[in-house]
Amino acid sequence: MSVEKTNQSWGGRFSEPVDAFVARFTASVDFDKRLYRHDIMGSIAHATMLAKVGVLSDAERDAIIDGLQQIQAEIEAGSFDWRVDLEDVHMNIEARLTDRIGVTGKKLHTGRSRNDQVATDIRLWLRDEIDTILAEITRLQEGLLGLAEAEADTIMPGFTHLQTAQPVTFGHHLLAWFEMLGRDYERLVDCRKRVNRMPLGSAALAGTTYPIQREITCQLLGFDAVGGNSLDGVSDRDFAIEFCAAASLAMMHLSRFSEELVLWTSAQFQFIDLPDRFCTGSSIMPQKKNPDVPELVRGKSGRVFGALTGLLTLMKGQPLAYNKDNQEDKEPLFDTADTLHDSLRAFADMVPAIRPRREIMREAARRGFSTATDLADYLVRKGLPFRDCHEIVGHAVKYGVDSGKDLAEMSLDELRRFSEQIDADVFDVLTLEGSVNARDHIGGTAPNQVRAAVARGRKLLAQR
Amino acid sequence: MSVEKTNQSWGGRFSEPVDAFVARFTASVDFDKRLYRHDIMGSIAHATMLAKVGVLSDAERDAIIDGLQQIQAEIEAGSFDWRVDLEDVHMNIEARLTDRIGVTGKKLHTGRSRNDQVATDIRLWLRDEIDTILAEITRLQEGLLGLAEAEADTIMPGFTHLQTAQPVTFGHHLLAWFEMLGRDYERLVDCRKRVNRMPLGSAALAGTTYPIQREITCQLLGFDAVGGNSLDGVSDRDFAIEFCAAASLAMMHLSRFSEELVLWTSAQFQFIDLPDRFCTGSSIMPQKKNPDVPELVRGKSGRVFGALTGLLTLMKGQPLAYNKDNQEDKEPLFDTADTLHDSLRAFADMVPAIRPRREIMREAARRGFSTATDLADYLVRKGLPFRDCHEIVGHAVKYGVDSGKDLAEMSLDELRRFSEQIDADVFDVLTLEGSVNARDHIGGTAPNQVRAAVARGRKLLAQR
Amino acid sequence: MSVEKTNQSWGGRFSEPVDAFVARFTASVDFDKRLYRHDIMGSIAHATMLAKVGVLSDAERDAIIDGLQQIQAEIEAGSFDWRVDLEDVHMNIEARLTDRIGVTGKKLHTGRSRNDQVATDIRLWLRDEIDTILAEITRLQEGLLGLAEAEADTIMPGFTHLQTAQPVTFGHHLLAWFEMLGRDYERLVDCRKRVNRMPLGSAALAGTTYPIQREITCQLLGFDAVGGNSLDGVSDRDFAIEFCAAASLAMMHLSRFSEELVLWTSAQFQFIDLPDRFCTGSSIMPQKKNPDVPELVRGKSGRVFGALTGLLTLMKGQPLAYNKDNQEDKEPLFDTADTLHDSLRAFADMVPAIRPRREIMREAARRGFSTATDLADYLVRKGLPFRDCHEIVGHAVKYGVDSGKDLAEMSLDELRRFSEQIDADVFDVLTLEGSVNARDHIGGTAPNQVRAAVARGRKLLAQR
Amino acid sequence: MSVEKTNQSWGGRFSEPVDAFVARFTASVDFDKRLYRHDIMGSIAHATMLAKVGVLSDAERDAIIDGLQQIQAEIEAGSFDWRVDLEDVHMNIEARLTDRIGVTGKKLHTGRSRNDQVATDIRLWLRDEIDTILAEITRLQEGLLGLAEAEADTIMPGFTHLQTAQPVTFGHHLLAWFEMLGRDYERLVDCRKRVNRMPLGSAALAGTTYPIQREITCQLLGFDAVGGNSLDGVSDRDFAIEFCAAASLAMMHLSRFSEELVLWTSAQFQFIDLPDRFCTGSSIMPQKKNPDVPELVRGKSGRVFGALTGLLTLMKGQPLAYNKDNQEDKEPLFDTADTLHDSLRAFADMVPAIRPRREIMREAARRGFSTATDLADYLVRKGLPFRDCHEIVGHAVKYGVDSGKDLAEMSLDELRRFSEQIDADVFDVLTLEGSVNARDHIGGTAPNQVRAAVARGRKLLAQR
Repeated sequence: MSVEKTNQSWGGRFSEPVDAFVARFTASVDFDKRLYRHDIMGSIAHATMLAKVGVLSDAERDAIIDGLQQIQAEIEAGSFDWRVDLEDVHMNIEARLTDRIGVTGKKLHTGRSRNDQVATDIRLWLRDEIDTILAEITRLQEGLLGLAEAEADTIMPGFTHLQTAQPVTFGHHLLAWFEMLGRDYERLVDCRKRVNRMPLGSAALAGTTYPIQREITCQLLGFDAVGGNSLDGVSDRDFAIEFCAAASLAMMHLSRFSEELVLWTSAQFQFIDLPDRFCTGSSIMPQKKNPDVPELVRGKSGRVFGALTGLLTLMKGQPLAYNKDNQEDKEPLFDTADTLHDSLRAFADMVPAIRPRREIMREAARRGFSTATDLADYLVRKGLPFRDCHEIVGHAVKYGVDSGKDLAEMSLDELRRFSEQIDADVFDVLTLEGSVNARDHIGGTAPNQVRAAVARGRKLLAQR
Repeated sequence: MSVEKTNQSWGGRFSEPVDAFVARFTASVDFDKRLYRHDIMGSIAHATMLAKVGVLSDAERDAIIDGLQQIQAEIEAGSFDWRVDLEDVHMNIEARLTDRIGVTGKKLHTGRSRNDQVATDIRLWLRDEIDTILAEITRLQEGLLGLAEAEADTIMPGFTHLQTAQPVTFGHHLLAWFEMLGRDYERLVDCRKRVNRMPLGSAALAGTTYPIQREITCQLLGFDAVGGNSLDGVSDRDFAIEFCAAASLAMMHLSRFSEELVLWTSAQFQFIDLPDRFCTGSSIMPQKKNPDVPELVRGKSGRVFGALTGLLTLMKGQPLAYNKDNQEDKEPLFDTADTLHDSLRAFADMVPAIRPRREIMREAARRGFSTATDLADYLVRKGLPFRDCHEIVGHAVKYGVDSGKDLAEMSLDELRRFSEQIDADVFDVLTLEGSVNARDHIGGTAPNQVRAAVARGRKLLAQR
Repeated sequence: MSVEKTNQSWGGRFSEPVDAFVARFTASVDFDKRLYRHDIMGSIAHATMLAKVGVLSDAERDAIIDGLQQIQAEIEAGSFDWRVDLEDVHMNIEARLTDRIGVTGKKLHTGRSRNDQVATDIRLWLRDEIDTILAEITRLQEGLLGLAEAEADTIMPGFTHLQTAQPVTFGHHLLAWFEMLGRDYERLVDCRKRVNRMPLGSAALAGTTYPIQREITCQLLGFDAVGGNSLDGVSDRDFAIEFCAAASLAMMHLSRFSEELVLWTSAQFQFIDLPDRFCTGSSIMPQKKNPDVPELVRGKSGRVFGALTGLLTLMKGQPLAYNKDNQEDKEPLFDTADTLHDSLRAFADMVPAIRPRREIMREAARRGFSTATDLADYLVRKGLPFRDCHEIVGHAVKYGVDSGKDLAEMSLDELRRFSEQIDADVFDVLTLEGSVNARDHIGGTAPNQVRAAVARGRKLLAQR
Repeated sequence: MSVEKTNQSWGGRFSEPVDAFVARFTASVDFDKRLYRHDIMGSIAHATMLAKVGVLSDAERDAIIDGLQQIQAEIEAGSFDWRVDLEDVHMNIEARLTDRIGVTGKKLHTGRSRNDQVATDIRLWLRDEIDTILAEITRLQEGLLGLAEAEADTIMPGFTHLQTAQPVTFGHHLLAWFEMLGRDYERLVDCRKRVNRMPLGSAALAGTTYPIQREITCQLLGFDAVGGNSLDGVSDRDFAIEFCAAASLAMMHLSRFSEELVLWTSAQFQFIDLPDRFCTGSSIMPQKKNPDVPELVRGKSGRVFGALTGLLTLMKGQPLAYNKDNQEDKEPLFDTADTLHDSLRAFADMVPAIRPRREIMREAARRGFSTATDLADYLVRKGLPFRDCHEIVGHAVKYGVDSGKDLAEMSLDELRRFSEQIDADVFDVLTLEGSVNARDHIGGTAPNQVRAAVARGRKLLAQR
């Protein structure tokens, strides 16, 4: 029976085979087989190093590398037989290697353990994932820059508390998202530094008695540095948690972004259209066109936050060094990387296709007393203290709410009821263009600031 | 192309098919197909009701029910062709029904929507899961009672702060876990009440114009009550969150339980043996016998806490009624139910096989000054104020730490150095049996209290 | 020095006083003094029981009770001197009791320990908090019923995916919140059962050697039952976690509620007005009237979810019995109860003052093709298969989007372009009243269903 | 009444004062007054800039700065009257400024808003906190290096799965914690980069119409860069979340560290002693000396994880720009910084005082078949395949378990029963020194590797 066979690899001191349910419950191959490519990559580097230091002969090394490459081909062709009784990706590949090349296959595991092997595999895998995710962030940011440039002059209401606050340019609004994603990019780059350190050579927990040269595998695998403590090397999962924290922030940004897209496609806002190909309908209500992609991404933020919570909980009270708890590190990590990657991809595809409805945005900005601050600033320039101006404009707004008129819709006489300092030139500051153009400093909403920010953004992306 | 075909079900107002990646990104069939049995159960009840109220003819009803039963057989035989382009389990089954029985199949969806359908399916599914989990809790509790009864007289050190505190009986310790699981059982029973309310009939969000009679489907499906508000009916996921909260508590208990099993199987404690079939070895270190099951369960608490966090986040800011975010409810719920169920199963199998090492436990209890409180109580009985007794015993302990002697190992002369009130009868209270037997009230550690608690526990389980 | 004085209570075996920073770091009196009332209540019951079983004389009991009552008066008068060096609320009160009544004060602690004492105090405190919270839930539900009754006929758009779905009545929408709160009420009642079990008598961890009668204190303190295992009794914090889970669900509901209030007070929706007294303005923008209360409540959901996460993490891997970790149970619990209570209070005050803008709601419902499903149902009644009807209406909607006309705004000729089955009677089903009135079954949106649900709700509240 | 007075600052459009409970519920001054020093620092820089660009006269600037400095002195002297009706720290200070210097005080707020002001204050505050925390990390790391150097030759059992695995040096074990803290340091330095960007100048959300020069305030306040988008500037709380994520990792490390200290001070391990000043006793059990500090730190990890969860939840679905939800950012952030700082301080004080019990550690390493891997490696060197060696040693271990002998305690004859390849030289590899010395590569446990690692660590700290 296969379970008994498994026990042969570590069963000398055992007097009974593993319980069948326990074997299944504790096996990880169903999910960790995903690491096969990086497992083989690590094994090839390890074998190469072992040959360099004389633990393997060149012929043994070649047989191992050749065998591993054929196994990779088998896996990718779908013809590999994954066995739960062999527990995990490592034992599956090692057992198959020995099937193929005989006793030499058993020498591959010299001077390492599954503890440092799996830590190495996950890091190699995550490094690749991060690189893919970084590329998607850049693609999404490019889409935002393109749209922001096109909409540098488009005026919409800026909100605080979801109440109309001041007019802003749509391009400016889009660049807020660009900034968020820029920080996500930075954080992942910082995280990658700590992912890309090599635990291989930590062996089971204490290092190994074989004359390994860790610098060799480090260089072969493209790691930035060799991990400096074997107990830490086999048990450290900081890199996974840090990645999930960075992913949580990125998903939080996409969730906020989604919230706005959902609002803006509502019948009440109508600020934008999403092309039909990013929406779905209802099997019941024939008129529905639902913004599924942003809704789903907003929802998916929860699972990533949950993965982060789960991983912190996982590590919370573990004594050194490796404990079986750590097997639980992979599924949340895999799921988080997939979720972030897919969400970014969906957004990077969708953003350039957003169609603003400029007239509706403009009309919305024209209402809601969005230039009230400009009127107060106007009165300040006439010499009144700001707090008095605020009070005056407050009364004018109250009148406007009651009479159904926005500030720019009042006559000069009406406005002068609130302050005699108001003259005909007030209507210049009450225009939307006047309002946005006046906020003309770095970070401000003025169209030329938007264009300058786009240029800076382009330069930033070009340097990546 | 299949995507275009899908759009036919709701695509009248759409001018382009769904983007291929979006179709995949938004589809749920990969995970919600698991609901097939409950989906069909709900559809059969719905069709039965529709016939009763005259919306379907009896022949139509029979054709639908027959078709659904055949589809269930197909699915269970593995011959059903799940299609991602049909989005979810509901559309897959409905489409197949129409394939099989023609246009009548299209009538099944009358007076309902996927919004109330999926809410119904999940509740039916979860109700079954809860019942299975309740049974596993009971099985584990039975194992604990059996072991507690057998070990009612076994003495071990009780710990606070992981420092030796007072002697307790091992049976008493086991019954602490029994209590925790008892609360888990209660909570799941309470949760089940709220799971078992029927949203079917809420339709898309507002109810339906068809003359449905919800009491009929309610009775057919074994629901306790009909949900009283359609907007709430399609969007409520409280039951899933409440289940995950109850599961988190249960996993927390199993994690605490695991922590103790891991400690107790260490070379430093050696309080118990776990049979080899619940342990695994190391591929490197030939001597290792690792308590994998408790370690893994301890680790798995993280994923359940994470699912709870994720679901709360998911629902946090959703306006009424159904939003696509809710599609994200299923994976964490499924994973949580599986994790709890498997963890309980592993423990229910393992607990009766725990082998206490009574001599080692007893020896540990004999050390660590575990009867110091008994000595203080002895002095109180001699008429001294408790705080003075505490101080006296503290000094005796300090002497014991320095001289390497436990209290019962000191001579009467040595003990009398700390208080002249100490007489030869002190050695009775310093025995382990004297200590545990003295704690003889409900909830106390005395062996006869343990036996009484076992009897109460047996009665409780019998009444379930 | 005070720290040394502290050590006198347990310092016999210690050779140096506690480090000053450690004393501050490990003290809890700054936050647990809040439990003073319940601590004294528990002590009075304990002293009463000790006298009944003969451990205290009646005179001692009376002196203790009198002393405790005077201490309570001191605390409530603000004249009590809380001392950090006395660690916690328990030692502060006990030390003060001995100051006041002499050596008899030292006898109060006979047969108990701080471990069971604090567990008792928290449960008594939380029981009171739950009762207060339940009353606020009921008050908020009453407000909802009143408003729902008044707005049973008010029509608004029902949303799914924040897209106009079908017309609903505002009263119906309000009752969805009523349902959510009803479940919150139930859950807290269920939780209260498990809060209201008595750990007192568990002593340090193993019970006590004194002849305590736990049934007496149980009855005096109004507990439902005596806890059955002392190890569990001192370490169980399930009740706090279960409360935080129930509170998280309630806050999630209030957050969803808030999200809608924020949307509805926006310039784009304008569905409701909140009275000025529930809003605040901006120190800069004179026109702003911000829905602060719902925004803040929405934000506060995060801290409650965080407390839940924190408490689960806290307990996750603790071996039995009491560990110092548990001191961290109080702050999140206190904060959660306060947050939920205050948020409910704010909503209970605010909800009756919500002013719907009926004309705007109605106008919004009239747009967005909200009666498209009714048109499809109409065609089904003419004998067409539903899927064909859906397709037909989809095309009509597309035409409407392009031409800027809602369905009811199209002429009969226009409508008949999509199906010749459409006759003049179609306009009846396209009216809003026709649509909502047709959903006339339990849980449906029809005004008379709303009124029936209000009546059921009133009855439910009356029975509490 | 004070509430009415408050409304004067923004109440022009309001027709009734804020409800008294709402005023209290929405006020933040109780907790944000902690920011006073950074609020004044920011205001002084802002006034200086306004004078440079001509918005204020030099005399006005001087009056403002002088007034603010006096207010700071008042606050620090405890004589400042914090008023809840003034909502927050900003309005309290501004109102007091106007009290002191008259109408000029009202000019301070020109060109800024509370939205950018509070974002600036928190960043300045957090920057200082991070610097303090970094210093404590370094202090703790120094303690670890000192201890590791002293214990470079001390042998203890290394564990995996809490089962004896291989001998390691205590110095090596201590350096694992050094590595973890090193990553914490790095992460906080990375985080600080993103904290130290200036939102000031974003004004309410869109920038300001005044001719501000943000580079001036940026330089005056020591920010690294000016934030590039005003909408993002007022709403971004990434820096707080990233800090809490880094703090969560650090607390997770301290929790793991604590778990080991608690284990090691137990009667079963006895690997170390903690000085009495870091422990507390029991008011009941005279013998207890509890490791309160590590237990409490382990428990406190929960509140930090909870704060992280809470902040992610808080931001999750917020549309741009500022919403009142964000007021909830401060308490979890403050609590997290305090918790991390205090926990590090406690550990930095305690670690140098840890007293290893070397004989007990050594004896523990001698047992548990810790050199079984060495025996297998020995047999490999004799020419046997590793898997066969593993099997042979497994049988020897099983014999040892049954007969109560460790490997080094068996006679040569006994050992040779399992393999004839075993010769007298086997006893060299079965020694503890042989085992640890053989793991002599970077990251390995050999004493000279420990010393080399200490030297590298010292160099690293010196470069900070």
